[in-house]
Amino acid sequence: MLGSIEAGGTKFVCGIGNEQGEVLERISIPTKTPDETIPEVIEFFKKRKVEAIGIGTFGPIDVKKSSPTYGHVLNTPKLAWQNYPFFQTVLDELQVPTGFTTDVNAAALGEYQFGAAKGLDSCLYITVGTGIGAGAVVNGELLEGLSHPEMGHIIVRRHPDDHFEGNCPFHKDCFEGLAAGPAIEKRWGKKGIEMTDRKEVWKMEAYYIAQALVQYIMILVPERIVIGGGVAHQESIFPLVRENVKSLLNGYFTHQELNENIADYIVAPGLKDNAGLVGGLVLARHALEEEE
Amino acid sequence: MLGSIEAGGTKFVCGIGNEQGEVLERISIPTKTPDETIPEVIEFFKKRKVEAIGIGTFGPIDVKKSSPTYGHVLNTPKLAWQNYPFFQTVLDELQVPTGFTTDVNAAALGEYQFGAAKGLDSCLYITVGTGIGAGAVVNGELLEGLSHPEMGHIIVRRHPDDHFEGNCPFHKDCFEGLAAGPAIEKRWGKKGIEMTDRKEVWKMEAYYIAQALVQYIMILVPERIVIGGGVAHQESIFPLVRENVKSLLNGYFTHQELNENIADYIVAPGLKDNAGLVGGLVLARHALEEEE
Ligand SMILES: Nc1ncnc2c1ncn2[C@@H]1O[C@H](COP(=O)(O)OP(=O)(O)O)[C@@H](O)[C@H]1O
Ligand SMILES: Nc1ncnc2c1ncn2[C@@H]1O[C@H](COP(=O)(O)OP(=O)(O)O)[C@@H](O)[C@H]1O
Ligand SMILES: [Zn+2]
Ligand SMILES: [Zn+2]
Repeated sequence: MLGSIEAGGTKFVCGIGNEQGEVLERISIPTKTPDETIPEVIEFFKKRKVEAIGIGTFGPIDVKKSSPTYGHVLNTPKLAWQNYPFFQTVLDELQVPTGFTTDVNAAALGEYQFGAAKGLDSCLYITVGTGIGAGAVVNGELLEGLSHPEMGHIIVRRHPDDHFEGNCPFHKDCFEGLAAGPAIEKRWGKKGIEMTDRKEVWKMEAYYIAQALVQYIMILVPERIVIGGGVAHQESIFPLVRENVKSLLNGYFTHQELNENIADYIVAPGLKDNAGLVGGLVLARHALEEEE
Repeated sequence: MLGSIEAGGTKFVCGIGNEQGEVLERISIPTKTPDETIPEVIEFFKKRKVEAIGIGTFGPIDVKKSSPTYGHVLNTPKLAWQNYPFFQTVLDELQVPTGFTTDVNAAALGEYQFGAAKGLDSCLYITVGTGIGAGAVVNGELLEGLSHPEMGHIIVRRHPDDHFEGNCPFHKDCFEGLAAGPAIEKRWGKKGIEMTDRKEVWKMEAYYIAQALVQYIMILVPERIVIGGGVAHQESIFPLVRENVKSLLNGYFTHQELNENIADYIVAPGLKDNAGLVGGLVLARHALEEEE
């Protein structure tokens, strides 16, 4: 059996599953301080004797294997977690091969192996929720470099009718600052879920998401893009995003995927809300294989 | 001996070198039609009995190995080259292992192996010249997906003082449409090389280049960025670009490379104008190794 941790800002989802990406058991533990949350997580896995474990966590985190602080949580606004040696603690306690990456990288890996991007060599997974983040698989491997990507904080052109200043504490009107759930709520004065029939809300949202996807396409050319997260539950954005992407690309790419077949290129998660948890199982399997 | 072809819009540079990336002999052949240019190229290499060859070419090209048109030049404005089976022709004529990628990918590979990014696991090479393009090495491999990247065509925010409409035939005011050499010339009415002392020219140029680098950093987080191409001969842009990148990132990344050490992060090519040709030798070596 393999273990998977999806560590989010409000809850940790811990799961047990197999190499086929099937989740057989799961629990949810509220995210408090590491001292409160982690012992519960460890206990859950100790009782189940997992052979390996994969962690997909909120960030920023140190994913550089050669770094002395590899596996630590970095400068997160969740102060109790700053500098927390997440990877090391899990490894020390459970003593099994442990994989460690961001929540969105794990989701990208899950969708790549068992979800909407199965059978391809590359894909990108973006979540539009409380924050915006994305992870990618390139040539079959997770995209990492100096750090993990921070694709939510790219620069976008403002919509001409948008008078909201943006709420990213670092960049004000970056993509996340204009298009994550809380930005939608601040701009329009209501939660997204209460504005399903307000076309102008989703037109503006799609305008921003499409710009971001165009940047990802020009830079990474993934073979498929999966959009998850709470805001993507608003299904009407998918056709709007696809239309905007096509019109922004303006025929520059001749690939069917970016033209007549764009509905199969920009898609919802194949694993629904399980992408991250399943990705953790894939990470665990990789960690096990590397050990052997 | 290994062979390398750097295929550009005005000339083909053909070189002979070794596995250490040393170029021992080179010639330059004007880019006319394939029927005129390619036989000269083939003749050069036939006489020198190369064991393998690497091609870095202008694009767009088909780099998807599973594609029926792998190795072809795609919808280039150089009409004589459209649909030209570049890779196949070289392979058929020379009958040696042949590597094939874009000019900027080859340059990225050259800088990664023997130039400014030696010893790292990732890097990005961008050329700002007649066009703008970039290639990247991720986890030690060239970044490719559905296609090769088209990083010159990303969306940028217009500089408030910029009244030039942009000259990209697809997107008008994309990055390339506002910041490549010809855009500089059209906006200001003079060639870049004649405006070395016009501070406002290079401030605006750096504004655009820095935005692009921020997008590349947020999305790819390369361990180093190398800027080549004719416009980058204008050395005063380097400090301006670095300052702009820092102020746009605004401390979001805490890595030294993106803060106090940014002068070692955004750099000129270590191989000067040889990055592409040396990258071709690396490609040739890879092709040879894959064969064995
Ligand atoms: N159906 C919906 N339509 C629009 N927005 C939604 C919907 N459901 C959730 N959201 C928004 O998504 C955000 C939460 O995203 P979610 O992905 O569920 O959580 P998190 O990002 O915290 O993991 C909130 O800002 C919420 O308002
Ligand atoms: N020193 C310089 N300062 C500014 N611009 C330059 C300089 N040298 C060349 N350029 C510009 O760079 C472009 C040519 O780029 P280059 O990389 O040499 O060729 P190409 O992109 O065609 O391979 C032209 O637009 C030219 O005006
Ligand atoms: Zn931001
Ligand atoms: Zn363009």
